Amino acid sequence: MFVAVVGGAQCSREEAKLAEAVGIELAKRKVTLICGGLGGVMAAACKGARSAGGKTVGILPGITRDEANPYVDVPIVTGIGEARNVIVVNTAQAVIAIGGKFGTLSEIAYALRNKIPVVGLNTWSLSKSGRLVKSIIAAQNPKEAVEKALAAIEAEKVTE
Amino acid sequence: MFVAVVGGAQCSREEAKLAEAVGIELAKRKVTLICGGLGGVMAAACKGARSAGGKTVGILPGITRDEANPYVDVPIVTGIGEARNVIVVNTAQAVIAIGGKFGTLSEIAYALRNKIPVVGLNTWSLSKSGRLVKSIIAAQNPKEAVEKALAAIEAEKVTE
Amino acid sequence: MFVAVVGGAQCSREEAKLAEAVGIELAKRKVTLICGGLGGVMAAACKGARSAGGKTVGILPGITRDEANPYVDVPIVTGIGEARNVIVVNTAQAVIAIGGKFGTLSEIAYALRNKIPVVGLNTWSLSKSGRLVKSIIAAQNPKEAVEKALAAIEAEKVTE
Amino acid sequence: MFVAVVGGAQCSREEAKLAEAVGIELAKRKVTLICGGLGGVMAAACKGARSAGGKTVGILPGITRDEANPYVDVPIVTGIGEARNVIVVNTAQAVIAIGGKFGTLSEIAYALRNKIPVVGLNTWSLSKSGRLVKSIIAAQNPKEAVEKALAAIEAEKVTE
Repeated sequence: MFVAVVGGAQCSREEAKLAEAVGIELAKRKVTLICGGLGGVMAAACKGARSAGGKTVGILPGITRDEANPYVDVPIVTGIGEARNVIVVNTAQAVIAIGGKFGTLSEIAYALRNKIPVVGLNTWSLSKSGRLVKSIIAAQNPKEAVEKALAAIEAEKVTE
Repeated sequence: MFVAVVGGAQCSREEAKLAEAVGIELAKRKVTLICGGLGGVMAAACKGARSAGGKTVGILPGITRDEANPYVDVPIVTGIGEARNVIVVNTAQAVIAIGGKFGTLSEIAYALRNKIPVVGLNTWSLSKSGRLVKSIIAAQNPKEAVEKALAAIEAEKVTE
Repeated sequence: MFVAVVGGAQCSREEAKLAEAVGIELAKRKVTLICGGLGGVMAAACKGARSAGGKTVGILPGITRDEANPYVDVPIVTGIGEARNVIVVNTAQAVIAIGGKFGTLSEIAYALRNKIPVVGLNTWSLSKSGRLVKSIIAAQNPKEAVEKALAAIEAEKVTE
Repeated sequence: MFVAVVGGAQCSREEAKLAEAVGIELAKRKVTLICGGLGGVMAAACKGARSAGGKTVGILPGITRDEANPYVDVPIVTGIGEARNVIVVNTAQAVIAIGGKFGTLSEIAYALRNKIPVVGLNTWSLSKSGRLVKSIIAAQNPKEAVEKALAAIEAEKVTE
């Protein structure tokens, strides 16, 4: 299974802790971690996954693998800049968003557009015409985030 | 000047009216209209621009110019699918978002990430940690949307 | 009609002359010039087209329209780096290649793959297993290049 | 280490044999195989790599992992169509081209443009102004192709 963790390339200490714990929980369940391959939330999630024996894929924006954080096993060198966000999302069966700024919001939007489930940990909320759009599955902690992401993937399989 | 109009490939009659009026207002001011080149809001905006003598560019997702709506002057055939949303936004100096679903949200997010001003007509609103993020400039009607978009471009130039 | 002119961002004086003349010939026939928007062959072709009242589109690799040469009317800001070569080619109904290095070869290859006719002025020739692959239409001068490109587009229409 | 194998999605039986043997030789040397993830040369190379305990990455053009051949371990779902060829090449430290048509030629061209060494097995040869351009390293058999690719990566490291 493939789950993406998305969030800022810079992040708070608390967000890094959440990301690392998410990485550990994914690795425990033999899920390959997909991310944008850079620092902040991405590096913390990869570090967690690695520490628990998991595999990590970093889908990089630039033209060199040298920009990957040191916990990426498979660096994908896209050279297509921000447009690589679409690939991060499409490559995953579910997305876990942690904190994040507008780049993260673009990944949430792409995922929802392509009907890929998104679990949020302290991330964006969306409304339209004054009404909350409840498309992001809220989680209270890393373990719950991972469990809800995997449950959403399973549910998807059943309905297919 | 180049302004993008973004919104759903399917849209309500009201959204189409707004988009057409935005296209007309842009054309009156000699602004080239950038869009995703397909139907719905995009076609309505192009139709308006054309009717007022304006120029239109459609940045298409697929590999054929045949998918462009009939009001596109310059069809750009990207072949890169949804990732073309990034190009629509980067090509514009300001973005006007009308209604829209998650694809539109991804364009809003990309624009804000790259510090391109976004004016919204009945579109998404964003919050984080329970607080509204006031990054989208609200407009009440097409004329105001265009005026605010052009004012934002001018302000950008001054601060540069 | 849309014809792409491809070639190096640096080029010899002779190649620049060829490119400028190709731009003039395209403009005379009301063909919109598509190119990568940068210097060398691209700038020379745009300069020629402009001088004869033609329209030019520059499909740029970076994230700013400032990198466009001064003869581009419509700068498309892709932000996807070298991958934008695919868009240059897909956006055209025929491609004229002038001189060029490996970037140009990639554009020739993409065009031929997508059955878009390629006319060559002093450019690459291709062989496989020791046999010349005659897929690039040879031209001796700019006028002939443009005539052969337009003839190829017409032939395409007939066979469709 | 990461080496790409590029070639047609349809291929002759002989090309498939070469590709499978290349996959085996890469796996024996603990090199991760990068490819476009589809059939033909790509599937044969992945099959070979898998059979020898190697790892395989398939960088797919479409929007579903279902199009990956059954020997891909890590499917990257780009959704950017033919433009994904650039990513296949950028992700590798060297490229081995087997047979191939114009899509393969585009990958060879991109690799050479970005100074990534290319080893050819019965593939394209290039000339300009009547002179052979010897940029593709010729190999006579799969083992030699892999050895030359790895030697080129090592040489690159020394000169850096």
